[in-house]
Amino acid sequence: MARRNALKVTRAENFADWYQEVIDAAVMGEPSGVRGCMIIRPWGYAIWERIQRHLDDMIKETGHENCYFPIFIPLELIEKEAAHVEGFAKEMAVVTHHRLAASEDGTLEPAGKLQNPLIVRPTSEAMITNAFARWISSYRDLPVKINQWANVVRWEMRPRLFLRTTEFLWQEGHTVHASPEEADEEVRQMLECYRALAEDFMAIPVIRGVKSEGERFPGAVDTHTVEAMMQDGRALQVGTSHNLGQNFAHAAKISFLDKDGSQQTPHTTSWGASTRLIGALIMVHSDDDGLRLPPRLAPQQVVIIPIDRDESRRDEVHKACHDLAAKIKGQVFAGETMRAKVDDREMKGSDKRWGWVKKGVPLVLEIGPRDLDNGVVAIFHRDNLDAGTQSTPVEDFVANLSQTFETMQQGMFDAAAGYRTEKLITEAKTLDEMRAFFEKDQGFVRAKWCENVETEEVLKNFGVTVRCLPYDQSDTEGVCIVTGKPATTDAIFGKSY
Amino acid sequence: MARRNALKVTRAENFADWYQEVIDAAVMGEPSGVRGCMIIRPWGYAIWERIQRHLDDMIKETGHENCYFPIFIPLELIEKEAAHVEGFAKEMAVVTHHRLAASEDGTLEPAGKLQNPLIVRPTSEAMITNAFARWISSYRDLPVKINQWANVVRWEMRPRLFLRTTEFLWQEGHTVHASPEEADEEVRQMLECYRALAEDFMAIPVIRGVKSEGERFPGAVDTHTVEAMMQDGRALQVGTSHNLGQNFAHAAKISFLDKDGSQQTPHTTSWGASTRLIGALIMVHSDDDGLRLPPRLAPQQVVIIPIDRDESRRDEVHKACHDLAAKIKGQVFAGETMRAKVDDREMKGSDKRWGWVKKGVPLVLEIGPRDLDNGVVAIFHRDNLDAGTQSTPVEDFVANLSQTFETMQQGMFDAAAGYRTEKLITEAKTLDEMRAFFEKDQGFVRAKWCENVETEEVLKNFGVTVRCLPYDQSDTEGVCIVTGKPATTDAIFGKSY
Repeated sequence: MARRNALKVTRAENFADWYQEVIDAAVMGEPSGVRGCMIIRPWGYAIWERIQRHLDDMIKETGHENCYFPIFIPLELIEKEAAHVEGFAKEMAVVTHHRLAASEDGTLEPAGKLQNPLIVRPTSEAMITNAFARWISSYRDLPVKINQWANVVRWEMRPRLFLRTTEFLWQEGHTVHASPEEADEEVRQMLECYRALAEDFMAIPVIRGVKSEGERFPGAVDTHTVEAMMQDGRALQVGTSHNLGQNFAHAAKISFLDKDGSQQTPHTTSWGASTRLIGALIMVHSDDDGLRLPPRLAPQQVVIIPIDRDESRRDEVHKACHDLAAKIKGQVFAGETMRAKVDDREMKGSDKRWGWVKKGVPLVLEIGPRDLDNGVVAIFHRDNLDAGTQSTPVEDFVANLSQTFETMQQGMFDAAAGYRTEKLITEAKTLDEMRAFFEKDQGFVRAKWCENVETEEVLKNFGVTVRCLPYDQSDTEGVCIVTGKPATTDAIFGKSY
Repeated sequence: MARRNALKVTRAENFADWYQEVIDAAVMGEPSGVRGCMIIRPWGYAIWERIQRHLDDMIKETGHENCYFPIFIPLELIEKEAAHVEGFAKEMAVVTHHRLAASEDGTLEPAGKLQNPLIVRPTSEAMITNAFARWISSYRDLPVKINQWANVVRWEMRPRLFLRTTEFLWQEGHTVHASPEEADEEVRQMLECYRALAEDFMAIPVIRGVKSEGERFPGAVDTHTVEAMMQDGRALQVGTSHNLGQNFAHAAKISFLDKDGSQQTPHTTSWGASTRLIGALIMVHSDDDGLRLPPRLAPQQVVIIPIDRDESRRDEVHKACHDLAAKIKGQVFAGETMRAKVDDREMKGSDKRWGWVKKGVPLVLEIGPRDLDNGVVAIFHRDNLDAGTQSTPVEDFVANLSQTFETMQQGMFDAAAGYRTEKLITEAKTLDEMRAFFEKDQGFVRAKWCENVETEEVLKNFGVTVRCLPYDQSDTEGVCIVTGKPATTDAIFGKSY
């Protein structure tokens, strides 16, 4: 086990550099040469596909249908949106030409100037809301519940793989309802999907809550959020669900003829999650040996490495590996067929083993002639590398595998919940105490707050934001940590990614 | 059955208008207001997801991994490609700015001019080939077999939903191999996947073959293709698989250190299929009542409509519908759980029925109180609307369902193969005879050909191209249909979409 702490940089030394090294070591992604745009390599993309498939199933089970809107948005539609949405983001890619032509020196240059420039979608919100106005005329057309998986572009000045990229992949759900109650129910239901995705599938504990006025989605009535804490104590928003009230419907002139013959304005919602989830996954679970994947999420749960230096027993060893893989794949964990593969590349066994450790595969097995003779398999447990090789009878290993995964999944959740509890501070009662905490440490401060939007500006001066007003309220009286005036809510404060 | 011929335009009257009406009537897609870009509505997207999932499974089973490359390509990379690729397409969207700013009159205008314009990818070929050069250094790195599902943009002057759109969805596979034999095997294997997708899943018969020099992918050594015939006799290329030889590897400077210590240039391939497949689906199977879907592909295989005007028996009828749906979903067809739903919207039963007929659902059922009393279900068979309602005992219906689907799937394939046989002409022996045929009719002409690229220009004068040199060759001698000189191959000629 000479190679423990396989990464060159540890979390304690430099969290940002460590983050980048986890990605490199797991071969998950890399810069593309196009500013802020990443290449997602197969291991990173397989993780995204796992997340996507699981979330997509939940989106469909809750009665939503997928569809697809164009990559381009006419400038005039953006203008309309900008006029009524305050915090309108202006950093977006603009298409001005539709052709390349050879210039006099033989290089290519833009030609075929468009009369009206097109915007590469930062979201399809404007296009979709616009389509709703065409599609909806009667209460019979409601509810409309659609979702889109797509790439979106927001020009990013300080890009970071998976966390902040100019192009990223996401899903955006958009719904229209006849009543405010139904819209509220929708928004909470989708937040529950994000909670389930984070906690039950990705083993990431989250705090559910509502955003403050200063952090709310521009134009929304309410933004619900699930907030996770990274190992460095900073917050990352894992998914958000917006109740847009009638604001967007009014602006886009969506209306419907109600049962009683009156013309009504419906209530809309939107909700989304993105490849940032992979950033959260890395920062919550990985260690100084690289990525760690919870078994439910892992694209491969077991990798089997044949130890085949002894040519005379090579075939026998390989056969045993493939037999075991087949046996594993015949079993079920968490409602899915187990995922296992044999790594029979021509490469040193220890290089393979550490490659898979750095990719975060839950269990790496080795089988050599001696193991065959003894009916055992050598197990490296990604969650307990200190234990080294654990030699286990094959039959026991297979019989206990589902339970082993269950324990690992729960163990990873508990570990993340553990450091979050440690870094969740409730002692700070004044602004000075809060500032003092964030000057020397990172974490969440849970305290009373008066909800005054001006106090959010005060907090921003030392890099802190209101992460959310948690669903789980104490309902006790007290004074605001910023102003000392009577408080109206419990709030979670923190520094965010 | 008063509403037979539910569409306003028939195939015979105007095939192009009929095509558009099938899409409208099935609510599959619509123009977006952005020139050439479509909105894919839930029914159209569900069909795409079925195609995508099935093809993706085959791509993974054959050892490929998915990944993701950026939407933008630097202009210089395109320039490099343009320099060595002859038939370089210039119609592409160019991003020149990364910000919107308010102008003096309050409208938004492009700002933040980019030093180097970016191209919205017409394919990721250039980016991927460029990445291969970074990733590959030794024979141990080979083969590389990756695939990407993405949106791509090619400025389209005469757009048509699903068939020719400025933005479309597709997959592009890219592989690198040490030997030419391996590359050839790869290209043929992926063509077989496209054949299986078209024939076995979508019930679309195809002709497998190799493209002529004039129709080959620019820079490719060989382009393999599967060609389908639409009901109007025109050809549509369903999938293509390119053997790029060492041409792209040379241009991108990809090389590897071989086992013997020598530096070698590898062989690359690429292969793709797109949302055009949906255009083919429509034009092969639909009739004058709208879309028809083969059971293996259909997002819903059975829709059950409760006939519930009698309030006193409403609950009982609905329960029976849901019970039957559950029973159907408990069964398996072609390796998948069957897909069924109850349509309990508040709407006239006959409107529902014709809505599903136009969407192409294989079986539409109705259950009312009388059916309950008699233990039967009323069946509308999408493939045999002339038969009207077929009243069948529920138990028989369920017991025979898998066989019913099998028969429908095969029946749709046979019908398509049938009209293709009718429209495949082998009598034409001279250019005049071929021209005479295409002047009055559409279809495929199968004839001898000399493979001279100049003859392809002659054919283009009357709108005909060489669709492929079929795998299935007669290996007999003869004279070229264009030149009268000795022929070197059998070829399929036709007009294409």
